Parts: sequence; C-alpha cells; structure tokens
Amino acid sequence: MHAHAYLVNGSPYGTISPLDRGLAYGDGIFRTMKVVDGLPQCWPLHYQKLVADCGAIGIVCPGAEVLMADIQLLFSADETAVAKIIITRGESERGYSLPAVTTPMRVIIKSAVPQIPDTSYSAGVKLAVCETRLSHQPRLAGIKHLNRLDNVMARMEWHDPSIMDGILLDTQHHVIECTAANIFARFGNTLVTPSLAKCGVAGVTRQRILEFAHTLDLQIKVEHITLEGLLQADETVICNSLYGALPVREIQGKVIKVTQLAHLIRGALST
Amino acid sequence: MHAHAYLVNGSPYGTISPLDRGLAYGDGIFRTMKVVDGLPQCWPLHYQKLVADCGAIGIVCPGAEVLMADIQLLFSADETAVAKIIITRGESERGYSLPAVTTPMRVIIKSAVPQIPDTSYSAGVKLAVCETRLSHQPRLAGIKHLNRLDNVMARMEWHDPSIMDGILLDTQHHVIECTAANIFARFGNTLVTPSLAKCGVAGVTRQRILEFAHTLDLQIKVEHITLEGLLQADETVICNSLYGALPVREIQGKVIKVTQLAHLIRGALST
Repeated sequence: MHAHAYLVNGSPYGTISPLDRGLAYGDGIFRTMKVVDGLPQCWPLHYQKLVADCGAIGIVCPGAEVLMADIQLLFSADETAVAKIIITRGESERGYSLPAVTTPMRVIIKSAVPQIPDTSYSAGVKLAVCETRLSHQPRLAGIKHLNRLDNVMARMEWHDPSIMDGILLDTQHHVIECTAANIFARFGNTLVTPSLAKCGVAGVTRQRILEFAHTLDLQIKVEHITLEGLLQADETVICNSLYGALPVREIQGKVIKVTQLAHLIRGALST
Repeated sequence: MHAHAYLVNGSPYGTISPLDRGLAYGDGIFRTMKVVDGLPQCWPLHYQKLVADCGAIGIVCPGAEVLMADIQLLFSADETAVAKIIITRGESERGYSLPAVTTPMRVIIKSAVPQIPDTSYSAGVKLAVCETRLSHQPRLAGIKHLNRLDNVMARMEWHDPSIMDGILLDTQHHVIECTAANIFARFGNTLVTPSLAKCGVAGVTRQRILEFAHTLDLQIKVEHITLEGLLQADETVICNSLYGALPVREIQGKVIKVTQLAHLIRGALST
C-alpha cells in the first residue's frame, strides 16, 4: 500500500483547484472510516451522515454508488486501511456568494490504520484536557465540516505521545468530546454522553452506541456534563470509527477506574 | 487578463495537494487586496496582518520578498486587479497532530476588481441582517483564517442583488461586521466600531480608519453595539480593501441617513 493514495473526483491524477471552496472557506464536510477487506465498515451509517452533513450546508452529496466505485478503485479486495472522504462545494469565483450552479468535489484518501497498543484496549488510555474551547455554532453543531481549527489548535497543546487524545470543553465549561473521538461516561447503569446541540461532531460510533446501549442494560442520557462531573463517573470511554471504543484510565493526571465497559461496547460494535 | 490566474507556491502549474491541511481543516489564513498598476495597495499593512495571523495559529509566513515576487509574476506592471493570498500549514498525514516539520503552502489568485455602481458610493448601499450568528472563539477572533463557514452560511441567506452585504451579529446579539466588510457607526463626533475580541475579522481598512479617525475630528470607540444601537447612529459605513468605504442607506428595510462620512473616509484612505 502506498503511504498515501487518493482519488480526486474519481481520478488518481486529479488535483484540487486553488479556487475550490473547501480550501477557501472550509466549505465542505468529511468522514473517516475503516475499510476491511476492501469494504468500508458501517457504510450505510457513514453514507447517511455524509448526506445529512452535506444537506445541512446545502451541498448535494455524490451518490452512494459513485463513492463506492471510488472506494473499489482505491482499495483492493484484500486491503485493510482507512478511508477519508472529503466533499466540498466545489469551485467558485472569489467571494462568499454561491454561483448559480456548483459542482461538488470529492476526495478519497487512503492511509494506514493507526496502530493502537493492546494495553490501550485492556488497561486504557490517558487524556489531556485542552485549554482551547469549542465555540458554539448551533447551525453547524454535530456536522463533521471542514472548519476544524478548534481541533487543530487543541491538538497543538500536548506533545506527550503517551496521551491518546484531549478532552474539549465548550465556552460554558461543558465536556463535549475529544479532538478525534466522542466520549461516554457511565454512572451506575446510566451511560451519559454530551449533547452536541451547540458544538461538537456527531460520530457514527457514538450513534451506534446510543442505539445499542439498552442491549448492554444501560440507560442512555444525552446531557450536559462538566469536567468535575466526568471525573465522578464509574467509567469513561472514548470512541471513534477507527479504534471502536477505548477505556480511559487517566484524565489530566488523575487516575480513574477502568472496568469492562469499553470491552462490552467493542463486542457490541463488532456484531 | 484571464478570468482566473493563480500561482501555487510560485508556480502557474502548481496544484493543491489533497493532503493539504488548508483543505482538510481550514488550517490556514488569507487576505484580499487591490493591486493597482501591478502594486498591492497598503502592502506593509497586509503583510503585517499575514504574518500576525499566521503566527496566531503557529504557521511561519513566507517572506515578504517571496510573496512580492509572486505578485510581480502574476500581475503585469500596468494591471489593476484583486489579489487573494492564501497561506496554509501545508501537507500532513491524516489527523490533527502536526508533523515535526511542516512546509507552508501559498496560493495567489488574481481576479477582476468588482464593479461598484457610482450610486453606491454617493447614495449608499443596502444591508441585510443575517440570521446566522458568529460563534465566539477568542483564540481565533480577528484572524482572517480559512474557517469561514459562518460567512458562507450567512451569505446564502439573501439573493436580492440590490443588497450589498449582510450584517453579522454574534450569539450575544452584538453587531460584529458584515460578511465581507467591517462596519463603523458615527454618533455625533464619535466613531464606533465593534470589538473583535471574541469573533470577526480585523480588516486592514478598519485598522487604517482607526488610525486616522482623529484627523477627521472623530473620536474612536471600539465597543459592543447592538442592532438597535446601530439603527440610532447618525451614519453607518462599511469598509474593506476593495471598495474602501461605502455609506449605508438601508438596513433590513429601514432607511437611514447618509451624509459625508464615507466620502471623508475614502479621501483619507486614498492619501
């Protein structure tokens, strides 16, 4: 596998126009997923999110068959890797206003699956708490759009490679997510995950956990949670489409308890 | 002049990598300026802002001589046009974390100077008031970065070509700017412009007006202003680097008075 391989509008020779609004304004959306044996995992959910996120900012998402043809061209049938799909509004003249007709641009990028040590799955991972706060923008909340400077600035805050991710709070001191993961905290038999009504990215794995939690005898609550509240949880788990779910064993130096939740969630995710 | 002409890293044949972080995350900044007879107007101020904005997000801005060489290559000595300079952090692997070394990427795009009718300068322009609110992000406020979905969404709100721009409020109902302009309101001999401490873009023309206002016998106040407050002003003016300053004659259907302020400001800007 090449370190990087990509298709732009279906072509391995494609390039991005300097006039693309994805570059100019972050005017587009993206999604990252695992491809196993040439097949994108949870494709219907990922495609649903692509369509919904495009729709939320007025972009017509390319058809599922178009994206799937790209994936089949880029990934061999025995290949396991990461697919990142970017969809932008396409080119326009200078200025924010839209031309009468826009032609969405799509990029699919292949990269290696990040290696997660076994101990991260069993013993858990460490999280930082970022100083950078997520800004509230209800019109864009939950959408995995290309305006991700908050995440970039937050990720610049730590260099310790033993830290897996950083917790992002919003400007009202609520825990929202990590820079590249959603977060769940268990209190007894209640599983809490932050509301993403004002900021944050609604991941596919988060959605799946919300849907199957009852099969693990857990009640779901989507609500505000402070950092102090999070530190009182019986267990905390982070999740995304690449590693599934990981237990958290330390938050900003404070050691927290790890039991079986991430393991149970991974079991449910794999079915 | 071509409808579009550009240089990527100094080359007319350059293209944007699909792995560029400007595309992936809006991880970069930009600036738009007028080029008259091959010379970018107010270049020292624009370059200062490019350096400051890059610095604020940890990008090393290309040298002034590099950018000036690009401009001389792209614009002929008798040409009047618009130059848009985009600087991104450059390429990286997938994920928010930065590689040990990044190489900033620069794009310079040439486009035609927008035609503004004479009556816009004399009689004034109409503004909409956008529903989309600017989100607060003090760490990025004032910076002309590539995360501009707020502006894109706001610009999608009106289609009437007689409306020049739209006023953007923040989530606390303060007037901040227009989608592509800063805003000034005169109350007697006091000139008020909104604080950009929490959101908004600090334009070069705004900065120049702040600096020379005293020569027009105006006191400057940078402070919060509500829409209701703005409608009580004796005069309102919008400004940017392309048209200088324009009087406002109507805000969301309400007719307001136009006198000499924009004319005086344009006079001072041209010296």
